[in-house]
Amino acid sequence: MTLETISVDIPGAAYGVTVGMGARSRIADAVDHADGVAQLVDRRVAGLHGTPCSGVPTLELQGGEGIKTLESLGRVLDFCAEAGLSRRSTLVAFGGGTIGDLGGLAASLFKRGLDVVQVPTTLLAQVDASVGGKTAINLAAGKNLAGTFHHPRAVFCDADLLATLDDEDFASGLGEVAKTAILGGDDALSRTEELAKAVVARDADALAEVVAMCVGVKARVVASDPEERGARRALNLGHTFGHAIEHAAGYGRVPHGVAVAVGLALAARATEGAFDADPELTTRTLELLRCFGLPTSLDELRSRDGLREALTPEALHVGLGHDKKGTVGSPEFVLARRPGDIALGVRLDDELLMSLLR
Amino acid sequence: MTLETISVDIPGAAYGVTVGMGARSRIADAVDHADGVAQLVDRRVAGLHGTPCSGVPTLELQGGEGIKTLESLGRVLDFCAEAGLSRRSTLVAFGGGTIGDLGGLAASLFKRGLDVVQVPTTLLAQVDASVGGKTAINLAAGKNLAGTFHHPRAVFCDADLLATLDDEDFASGLGEVAKTAILGGDDALSRTEELAKAVVARDADALAEVVAMCVGVKARVVASDPEERGARRALNLGHTFGHAIEHAAGYGRVPHGVAVAVGLALAARATEGAFDADPELTTRTLELLRCFGLPTSLDELRSRDGLREALTPEALHVGLGHDKKGTVGSPEFVLARRPGDIALGVRLDDELLMSLLR
Repeated sequence: MTLETISVDIPGAAYGVTVGMGARSRIADAVDHADGVAQLVDRRVAGLHGTPCSGVPTLELQGGEGIKTLESLGRVLDFCAEAGLSRRSTLVAFGGGTIGDLGGLAASLFKRGLDVVQVPTTLLAQVDASVGGKTAINLAAGKNLAGTFHHPRAVFCDADLLATLDDEDFASGLGEVAKTAILGGDDALSRTEELAKAVVARDADALAEVVAMCVGVKARVVASDPEERGARRALNLGHTFGHAIEHAAGYGRVPHGVAVAVGLALAARATEGAFDADPELTTRTLELLRCFGLPTSLDELRSRDGLREALTPEALHVGLGHDKKGTVGSPEFVLARRPGDIALGVRLDDELLMSLLR
Repeated sequence: MTLETISVDIPGAAYGVTVGMGARSRIADAVDHADGVAQLVDRRVAGLHGTPCSGVPTLELQGGEGIKTLESLGRVLDFCAEAGLSRRSTLVAFGGGTIGDLGGLAASLFKRGLDVVQVPTTLLAQVDASVGGKTAINLAAGKNLAGTFHHPRAVFCDADLLATLDDEDFASGLGEVAKTAILGGDDALSRTEELAKAVVARDADALAEVVAMCVGVKARVVASDPEERGARRALNLGHTFGHAIEHAAGYGRVPHGVAVAVGLALAARATEGAFDADPELTTRTLELLRCFGLPTSLDELRSRDGLREALTPEALHVGLGHDKKGTVGSPEFVLARRPGDIALGVRLDDELLMSLLR
């Protein structure tokens, strides 16, 4: 597969996501115009793949949730000042979602906003964080509680970088791939099913195609609702349950994409209960998750080390109250009636909800 | 004067600035719709005037440049979480410019943005910070280096609050009043000249009229350029020199409005040198500043305690390089050819520049 550029048509902030093997080689064009460039890079990824730009000020941090703090934000902001960046400069963020979140937030704040070029290096970040412009750090009270919407100037998803991901990180990305395939409609889901085995084998062409498909689906949704006031909530498919799982387990214990996978399975079952829906989508969802090597039920997840005690129905119910997008009161769910046919703001009756959490 | 509401027509984010005696009484209407309200208040002002909202979670901080830090930002963000604010909540910021800057930034970040209602309590904040949506904290490398554009939902400028300002804070606001009057055009400048004595005597009606005039002028400029890409730079009249003075003196030693006053005087002289302009505006500028009790030359400022050694021509020249809005290379100035007729991006030849800094 050659390089493909998908455009994200945010009004006033359109940008392209370049996908494929060697996509990084195009970064130079994107920062060409800038009055100064600096880069924030994940230390581990830089050790394996080098840094995306040469001869520019570089800050290496060790990626992970631990850097999504005000303290690290201060470090990146001070680095931007030391690098002499102006409002017309560009900060390149090279790493997984946490580096992208932190770098994007710093870029949106430094001198009230300079360009960021995102070079996501994990599957999760390529299919999810690369489009949407969300940036964030965590607060003591919860994840991603402080952030901005700051659309990147350009994104480069290099399939080459996915070869060195460890299995857990890779599986985490597959949860979001499954979600996006369901959102995308029947063609997207069918093609993902066809490619699933090759994707799991990390075939570079299959990965590039699936990443491009996910980026295209997400771009369409985000462009229709850049600041998450409505339609964009479709992207939370599987996430209300997923966040509850992450919260009940304790953040960091269940990888995000794994929690989303179980969330997708629960959402599929919730759809059957709430809408008398055809069980076909449930079957396809579970099959795809299995093919991706992901858990498809709470019980499967509970059988992992030490999670049985944490993931009680009661703890999960409490966790459902912690989705920051929900309103006060009973949680709202995003459910797929069919591939691409998404219901927003669904409230489930208590009996159904508790039966799902059991 | 009765209450007057000036609308600031930011596309997609229009809001009203209510000016006059007792304007605070209208805050309740502005937060009525909110899903939760909390307030950040200046401890000193709250001690004198109470807090703007009753029965809502309240964080008291001591206003001043010292709170424009990442640490204080974290404190306000944690407070927002403790107060249980959602994306549909409103944070009320009650204090001078530093409280407004910090509260506005926290509001723009918490859950990626909730509404802020600004209730500025100093003359400087009422005439300047109340319109424009700029928020910021300081970094080690300089003032206001990290921030956002986050337009408030509403602003209330209560003339009642200005009675208790100390003389230095009051004088600082008058520097911005003079600037805005010059930007506003001949009518605005003439009316400000007429009211100057009453303003200095803190006549409430005169103050309310002048604040309303300044808000109207600034609203017009900001609405034409919400993110400071062009026309809005007119608001930097007197500020390139002013920032150089603040930088050379050491931040906090010269009140912002006082530095701007001398900056306006220098800009007026620069205009004469650069454009062969009619000296009438220089005469009117200096006269208005004098009537406001503000210094009108570097020498007058240097005669203040300990500033002679700090404000050398060389230190001021270095300080000119520290305006974050400038491009690389020689500094750009904003100059008024006539009231309301503003030239942007003017570069001065070195000889003229050094003669002004002497």
